Amino acid sequence: MNKRAVIRVLGFLLGVTSIGLLAPALVSALYRDGDGWSFLATAAIGAALGGLLWRLGSSAREIHVREGFAVVTLGWLTVGLLGGLPAWFSGQIPCFTDAVFESISGFTTTGASILADIESRSHGLLFWRSLTHWFGGMGIVLLALAILPLLGVGGMQLFRAEVPGPLHERLTPRISQTAKLLWGVYVLLTVLEAAALRLAGMSLFDAICHAFATMATGGFSTRNASVGAYANPAIHWIIIVFMFLAGTNFTLHYLALRGKLRAYKRDDEFRFYLSVIAIAFVLISLPLVLQQVYPTLEQAARHGLFQTVSIMTTTGFVTADYLLWPPVAHAVLLVLMAVGGCAGSTGGGIKVVRLLILFKAAKSELQKLLHPRAVTTLWFNGRAVPAQLATNVLGFLLLFMLIYIAGIVVLTLSGHDLLSAVGATAATLGNIGPGLGSVGPVENYAHFLGWEKWLLMFFMVVGRLELYTVLVLFLPEAWRRT
Amino acid sequence: MNKRAVIRVLGFLLGVTSIGLLAPALVSALYRDGDGWSFLATAAIGAALGGLLWRLGSSAREIHVREGFAVVTLGWLTVGLLGGLPAWFSGQIPCFTDAVFESISGFTTTGASILADIESRSHGLLFWRSLTHWFGGMGIVLLALAILPLLGVGGMQLFRAEVPGPLHERLTPRISQTAKLLWGVYVLLTVLEAAALRLAGMSLFDAICHAFATMATGGFSTRNASVGAYANPAIHWIIIVFMFLAGTNFTLHYLALRGKLRAYKRDDEFRFYLSVIAIAFVLISLPLVLQQVYPTLEQAARHGLFQTVSIMTTTGFVTADYLLWPPVAHAVLLVLMAVGGCAGSTGGGIKVVRLLILFKAAKSELQKLLHPRAVTTLWFNGRAVPAQLATNVLGFLLLFMLIYIAGIVVLTLSGHDLLSAVGATAATLGNIGPGLGSVGPVENYAHFLGWEKWLLMFFMVVGRLELYTVLVLFLPEAWRRT
Repeated sequence: MNKRAVIRVLGFLLGVTSIGLLAPALVSALYRDGDGWSFLATAAIGAALGGLLWRLGSSAREIHVREGFAVVTLGWLTVGLLGGLPAWFSGQIPCFTDAVFESISGFTTTGASILADIESRSHGLLFWRSLTHWFGGMGIVLLALAILPLLGVGGMQLFRAEVPGPLHERLTPRISQTAKLLWGVYVLLTVLEAAALRLAGMSLFDAICHAFATMATGGFSTRNASVGAYANPAIHWIIIVFMFLAGTNFTLHYLALRGKLRAYKRDDEFRFYLSVIAIAFVLISLPLVLQQVYPTLEQAARHGLFQTVSIMTTTGFVTADYLLWPPVAHAVLLVLMAVGGCAGSTGGGIKVVRLLILFKAAKSELQKLLHPRAVTTLWFNGRAVPAQLATNVLGFLLLFMLIYIAGIVVLTLSGHDLLSAVGATAATLGNIGPGLGSVGPVENYAHFLGWEKWLLMFFMVVGRLELYTVLVLFLPEAWRRT
Repeated sequence: MNKRAVIRVLGFLLGVTSIGLLAPALVSALYRDGDGWSFLATAAIGAALGGLLWRLGSSAREIHVREGFAVVTLGWLTVGLLGGLPAWFSGQIPCFTDAVFESISGFTTTGASILADIESRSHGLLFWRSLTHWFGGMGIVLLALAILPLLGVGGMQLFRAEVPGPLHERLTPRISQTAKLLWGVYVLLTVLEAAALRLAGMSLFDAICHAFATMATGGFSTRNASVGAYANPAIHWIIIVFMFLAGTNFTLHYLALRGKLRAYKRDDEFRFYLSVIAIAFVLISLPLVLQQVYPTLEQAARHGLFQTVSIMTTTGFVTADYLLWPPVAHAVLLVLMAVGGCAGSTGGGIKVVRLLILFKAAKSELQKLLHPRAVTTLWFNGRAVPAQLATNVLGFLLLFMLIYIAGIVVLTLSGHDLLSAVGATAATLGNIGPGLGSVGPVENYAHFLGWEKWLLMFFMVVGRLELYTVLVLFLPEAWRRT
């Protein structure tokens, strides 16, 4: 591993974050909430530390696979730690662990919060929380569509035809090109959503914050009751639409903007994504209607669909306490927590494409039993899936389950009940935010012990970076000199 | 599909079951419980129906793969239906669905019961319940080690070197040879256990019934409190040992009896099986010790190990109400419910070998990330695992999860709480018996609705026959004429 090259990139990331910190400082100044200094102080620390690392490091002509893993994982951690400082400095979140928890939860677009009373926090901090989501989402788009395919990780190998070339190719030129295009889409959708929310009656501040959190599939709200605080159904419907878009592969949006609207229809993953949402929606909303949980059909449909799309895309906004709904909602939402968004979206979880591969494998196995000599090929978007991809998916699934199980075991050992342990692990590993039991939609993560919070932060980072990226660093070989 | 060949085999199976029904008739006569006539009547019906099917069907010179699937699935169903008649005839279980539930639960070695008061039933019925386990276990040994490998299903493809030859080879000669050897082991272990239990103070009747239920990893007891009814710790330890042996691949026992004791040590799956039990034991028993749930260390260790081995091997005997234990026990036992026994044992579940393949795949994927050009091969017992096996395992896992999820969704839709729905699905699909929530170790399945019981029976059969065997019959192609 070329450690000095990694250090330099980390320095660069700290520098960029410092610039980003000027935005909440400006918001604090505008609202005169007195927190501006904490952002400026953090920006100064970030800039100083970033500059130091930049000088200590050295530029590498090529960044190889190992360095890529280290940069991605350590980058998310470093920026996450820095992002927690303002709330700690200003005393808005007096406990250091809690402040970092909120920041890591932001940058990983999880949206799990330790705050019971959100509305009493300063405008600067609320803006910064939403902005960490938005930066995190931007990082994920870059990661999923430009970096991970080159590292051979993620569900995106299937789309590799668009990102060709051998693994050791220099990363830089292609990344910046891909990044620009996709960030354009990301910015455009964010602006559209903020405008729509403003038109529907939200304040400009709230509209921007919620647009940030939606497009990143984050879930931090500026209100205690999350999106449920807004009575206008139009706001719910707008957020449903944009959560859905944020959970879709951004390449498809890019193609659609270039006039290729058929890209959606032709994409196997998108169709599967749509089907899962449709089925889950029916399973959740039908009992709501039948048991007359809501007075009107529109309300049952809206709240059912909102929670379905919010959990499936791993956003985590809520308009209703789904723990009070019939038990089938708990079951379906728990499943959706694991599924997650499409590959190449800002959504977390296992990703729809991996489940689709699983489906196709299962179907092909059944048919192979009847025709043992037939050669079966899995097809995805009209292309044959390489056999090794099945092993990759298998390995991912096992790692996911192992971490999931480990989380549940450790949290129950520590005394949490089974449902809360399952909920907290699923909600952090899947980057969702709200879970089940004691971390349900109207609860928060404040009651966890300090070390448990660090464990949950680890889950957020591991889940966000598609497991392999982080776990590979635990292999001693990864750190050997090349 | 050669339907007439299938019909003839089903006739044969009914005939064999009729002969088996003479045993409980004899027990009824010995104990003068007045139920003997119901077994004889059922035997007569089975013999008549069997004879009819035998005549209607025709012998096939060769049984092909398709017929194999149909025989296995329909065989378990037909025999299960017949086996429910005695309890229904005698009025011991007045409801037909309940009587069949108990029988299917027996033949699939699940051990889920609808009986609240077991001890008040006749000796004949109690003996028949245990005997259905033992027959079912015998069928499973035959199925797993002789039939499924030839059909290309199950975790046993890895052991195929011992069962060579192309798929369309005539099944008969090899099956009978393999069956004789393994049934020898099965009978021997049953006799040994019954003798040990008798020596430890059980009545001969109870000793035989519990030996039947242990070796089949069934779990029906003759006592309301299951094995917990026996105060002598020796009885608990004896059953722990034999449950462990019943969850092991029977081929290993056969090799050990022929002097090759090293076979255990050399078997990757066996070592993994041992490790999982060891880890689960520590995770469950340590909190029992620390929280002083039991007065002595021996008791904490014994009850912890008993429940661990019982659930892991999918037996389902209990000596304690584990729902009253610390939450970590619920989490660990829920995981063990999915794992199950070794391939080629009488245990159900996903099977240890499949998880081992998953583990190896995950590890190889992590290493591939660092060495993208290296050719990675998965090794099992010193042999390279064919690449297509990974797809097979992947498909199995997805089908398992899909049925699991479907079960939870349907049961919660019907109004059961999440934990009970998870518990009931896991316990029937994994052929365990007791689950969580309302189907915990001191509860039973009587409170489920009629159609829910049939659904659970379907899960038992699907889980028992390794999913593919049953599900392949839902493909229209399976029924096409050849």
